[in-house]
Amino acid sequence: MSQLLRGHNITVSRDGYAAGEGQSLERPFGHADPGTMFAWAFGTASWPNRTEPGGSRGLEDYLTREFHRNIGAEIMGRHKFGPQRGPWTDHEWQGWWGDEPPFHTPVLVLTHHPRPSFTLSDTTFHFVDADPQTALELAREAADGKDVRLGGGATTIRAFLDADLVDTLHVAVVPVELGAGTRLWTSPDELADRYHVDVVPRPDGVVHHLFWRR
Amino acid sequence: MSQLLRGHNITVSRDGYAAGEGQSLERPFGHADPGTMFAWAFGTASWPNRTEPGGSRGLEDYLTREFHRNIGAEIMGRHKFGPQRGPWTDHEWQGWWGDEPPFHTPVLVLTHHPRPSFTLSDTTFHFVDADPQTALELAREAADGKDVRLGGGATTIRAFLDADLVDTLHVAVVPVELGAGTRLWTSPDELADRYHVDVVPRPDGVVHHLFWRR
Repeated sequence: MSQLLRGHNITVSRDGYAAGEGQSLERPFGHADPGTMFAWAFGTASWPNRTEPGGSRGLEDYLTREFHRNIGAEIMGRHKFGPQRGPWTDHEWQGWWGDEPPFHTPVLVLTHHPRPSFTLSDTTFHFVDADPQTALELAREAADGKDVRLGGGATTIRAFLDADLVDTLHVAVVPVELGAGTRLWTSPDELADRYHVDVVPRPDGVVHHLFWRR
Repeated sequence: MSQLLRGHNITVSRDGYAAGEGQSLERPFGHADPGTMFAWAFGTASWPNRTEPGGSRGLEDYLTREFHRNIGAEIMGRHKFGPQRGPWTDHEWQGWWGDEPPFHTPVLVLTHHPRPSFTLSDTTFHFVDADPQTALELAREAADGKDVRLGGGATTIRAFLDADLVDTLHVAVVPVELGAGTRLWTSPDELADRYHVDVVPRPDGVVHHLFWRR
């Protein structure tokens, strides 16, 4: 089987925004509240950032569990790494993900301003100025036969969707309106011509959308 | 983390039967039609018995995909191996699972009539006369640190539930009435005192029940 490009746990507001306006060091999601956006995921046993045992093993846990399954590399946009714009002024700051990043694989950070790679625990961040096709080739090589995770944010996912490179995608639409920010879509219908979709509404108002290529 | 005992893709009729009456070599599910019972699973990309590429990657695929994830051994009842009752009269017949069984791990077959172990491809069948607790200890040892799958049938699952050994269980309740056969339960409520349950109804009338220990 070929190496798939897979997006997991991508969470957007009902009006299609994956992050709010005004990203900063203190507010990676801008005016959006990550606690509200990711409430569906934080309580699951398999949430990648979970530090304590326990957690639910219901349907949402089947979804968060996919984050690590057969993944050999991640591609992320620069704004998932940090809030900086333009040339890097500080190489000491090593991103939002702490000393034990939840990735445990090579991570390709897409940026027009490359900087030296570095390793935190078992995650190595590489900084790459490349179009989606080239970035995917690099990530597949780094993934050593496994699949590649498309980590986000919305702008990055949109670029890979537009280049028709995404094989499967899980988007959780949460019952929040953001009004502005970084948009994934106006409507999930935008993907209907190229993808099958399974729409799974949940009692808490979250609607999971599971896409796979036609 | 400890080695969990997990049941996956256990499929029962609305009236609680996992198999019909009259099991035979030709009809492993007796009067129940496996094509109808497992219709929810057969079309998924990850169904373990799938021999062709393709298949859906919607919610049901997340469920069937769990069959192999971090599993190091399976425990099954004798009637999931074959239709025979009493002492074995034919060691040539090697079970319902063909030359390439979908397990790819050691499999412990519970029987009051042990017979020699044998290997088909990368699956080894061991025949064990043991109570659930002892069988689980043997399976954990065979699983080499991974989890153990509780494969069924219903009588075997019931025995492990009654011994309070099951950690997680996925049961698909399908819109079929069997009226008689091998029963898993009268109602899923029987497990409510010991398990959390997430109930996920689907457009085709199947209702997935995801249980995990309280």
